[in-house]
This record gives sequence, structure tokens and C-alpha cells, in this order.
Amino acid sequence: MKNIITISREYGSGGRLVGRQVADALDIPFYDKELIALVAKESGYDLKFVEETGEYSASSNILFNLATGSMANYIAYSETPMSMADQLHILQSKIIREIADTGPCVIVGRAADYILREREDCLNVFVCADIESKTKRAVEYFEIAPEKAEKALKKKDKARAQHYNHYTSQPWGVPSTYHVCVNSGTLGIEGAVKIIVDAVKTDNAK
Amino acid sequence: MKNIITISREYGSGGRLVGRQVADALDIPFYDKELIALVAKESGYDLKFVEETGEYSASSNILFNLATGSMANYIAYSETPMSMADQLHILQSKIIREIADTGPCVIVGRAADYILREREDCLNVFVCADIESKTKRAVEYFEIAPEKAEKALKKKDKARAQHYNHYTSQPWGVPSTYHVCVNSGTLGIEGAVKIIVDAVKTDNAK
Repeated sequence: MKNIITISREYGSGGRLVGRQVADALDIPFYDKELIALVAKESGYDLKFVEETGEYSASSNILFNLATGSMANYIAYSETPMSMADQLHILQSKIIREIADTGPCVIVGRAADYILREREDCLNVFVCADIESKTKRAVEYFEIAPEKAEKALKKKDKARAQHYNHYTSQPWGVPSTYHVCVNSGTLGIEGAVKIIVDAVKTDNAK
Repeated sequence: MKNIITISREYGSGGRLVGRQVADALDIPFYDKELIALVAKESGYDLKFVEETGEYSASSNILFNLATGSMANYIAYSETPMSMADQLHILQSKIIREIADTGPCVIVGRAADYILREREDCLNVFVCADIESKTKRAVEYFEIAPEKAEKALKKKDKARAQHYNHYTSQPWGVPSTYHVCVNSGTLGIEGAVKIIVDAVKTDNAK
């Protein structure tokens, strides 16, 4: 039974909207800005800082990275000063685990798939789209200038991938990292939502 | 309405089995060995040669590749001698188009997604799995020695990717190339089949 749905997504793919509509269709809570707000509240950090750092920054502590190579060694190296990004990641991970413990939900981004990897009730989804669809969306919804859109999209995804790779041992955006990948460009938002909702319903009907 | 299902797959992911079960569930024809047999019959080439060359070889005509860079320029360069791989690709493409013209079906491999890209009734699926699941399957079904399995899997996928990249202008195994990617390792064969069947049924219920 998989009814905790984690949504990873390419920038501009409409993954957040897909997640929102999946949550609505299944009548379960949706965590995107809501998660960021929880992390901001508990950490005392600014919302904008949490939003950016919790998904786009890898640790800026070069010595720590060189010394340990991964978050898993934190405890062993606990005397090494911890970067704000790493501190935020630990707090964010704790909150994501607490959210999952409360029951079925949709969680967008923030390496939730990896953080919850020990659970058997997660359906990990990746939402992608062709560059044309993403550019259109970026121009329309994020007010990015058309001539700058493609570069901006690539930059965002590169940062997401680096963040993900830093805090997990998995590659971002590769099919085998997830249960299902859906292309919101060719399927449309509605088509992508239907596939995810059906996947959850079929699994729960077992 | 998408009821021509093309299945691309990582070696060892059970993609062929997924395709077979999707075809059975939807009660539509399945083309894998059947397609290879049609190409062999029409070309006069040996079955084994068609099987290998039609999915794992890029053109061996180096001069042709250097001169044109893509299949699209064949006509313009028609005086350039054509490699057997390229000849086979052209014939295979023709047969895939003819098969699609006959109605709903499942076609495994052979860049069918790209060959049929102008059609609106194709659902292009990629089947992947984690390395452990693929290794297990390769050892069990393809009688590959366990210690050689990982290397063999990578070699096969590399050849598939090169073949695909040569005959299409798209990257192989990247989510945005397909409508849906399913992970038969984490979902199981049955789970992967269900997602595809539901996607077809939901789409047709529109």
C-alpha cells in the first residue's frame, strides 16, 4: 500500500501542480510551501532562505565535504562545524519523517523520496517535460524572460540535482531512482495526475 | 486515445515481459520476436543478425556517419554506400509503421517510439530497474554468470543507447524521451504492467 507520494520534478514541468491535483483527487494533505513553512518555523530561518537552501544548495562547508563525503558520517565527525545547509537538511529530514508518520500525503521536492527510503508505503514520482513545455510554463508562470528561460531552467535543475546528489547517494532525474516518471509535456498535467492517482488506487485495491 | 504502446527497456528490467503482459491484459497483438521475424523474412537476413543489428548496432559506415551525422540526410546523400545496419533500420522502420497502421498493439524496442513519433496514438513507455533486480534477472533468465552480470548489463544498455542515439535525435533512457517510465524493480512486473494498462484504459475512457 503506497499512499505517501513524493514528487520530484524538473523546473517548469508543473510538478508542484501535479502534486497538488493528486492530493486533491486522493483527498490527502499536500506539502510544498506548507513544508517550507514548518521548517522555517522550527528553525527560525527566513522562509525564502529555507525555500532556496533546502532544495538548491549543497553544503557550503568544503572541509566537511572533503572529510566525510556524505551526510551519513556526520555523527562520526560531529566536531566538524556544520554548514547552515547541512543543519537545515537535518531539520528538514526530521520534519519530513514526522509528516509521513501522520499518514497519507503528497510531499513535493526536498529529497523526500530518499529521506523516507526505509518506508514501504511511499510512491516516488518524477515529473518531467520537454524543454518547449517547460519554457512555456516558466515564461507564463514564473515570469522569466523567454530568451533567458532555457538557461534558467537548466540552472535550476542543475542546482536541484547537485543538492539531491549531495544529500543522497542516488542520481537525480534518472528513471531507476523513482517508481514512476511521468511526462507532463506529452501527457498534459491532467494525464500525469491520472497515472499517479491510478497507481495509488490500484496499489491500494490489492 | 493512445493504444499503440512502445516499450523501451533497460536490459534485465523484464521490459519484454511487461510488454507481453500489457498486450495480454489489453488483448492486443504483441511485437517483439514477431517483429524481428517479419524483418528477417522481408530482408532475407538471418534472424540472429536482425535481432542484434536492429537494436544494438549503429551504422558501421564511418564515412557515411562523418558525412551526414544522421539518417535524415540519407536521401540527399543517396550515392553514399549504405551500411547493412542502416539498410536494416530503414526496412525495420517501414515494418514498424505498417504494424502500427493495422491498429492497437505493443511493440518492444527498436526505437519504435521515435519511428512512430508523428502519430498521436502512441504511449511511449520506458521500463527500468535497479541494478540488483536487473542482475538477478540476467543471472536467472539469460544465464549470465553472476560475476559478469553487472558489466554485461551495462554493455547491453550502452549499445542500445548508442543505437537509439544514432537513429533518433533523442537521448535514450531519459524520462522526458517517454510518456511514462516504470521501475519494475521497485514496483514489480505486475505493478509496472498495471500502471501502463491503467494509463491506456484511462486515456481511452476520455
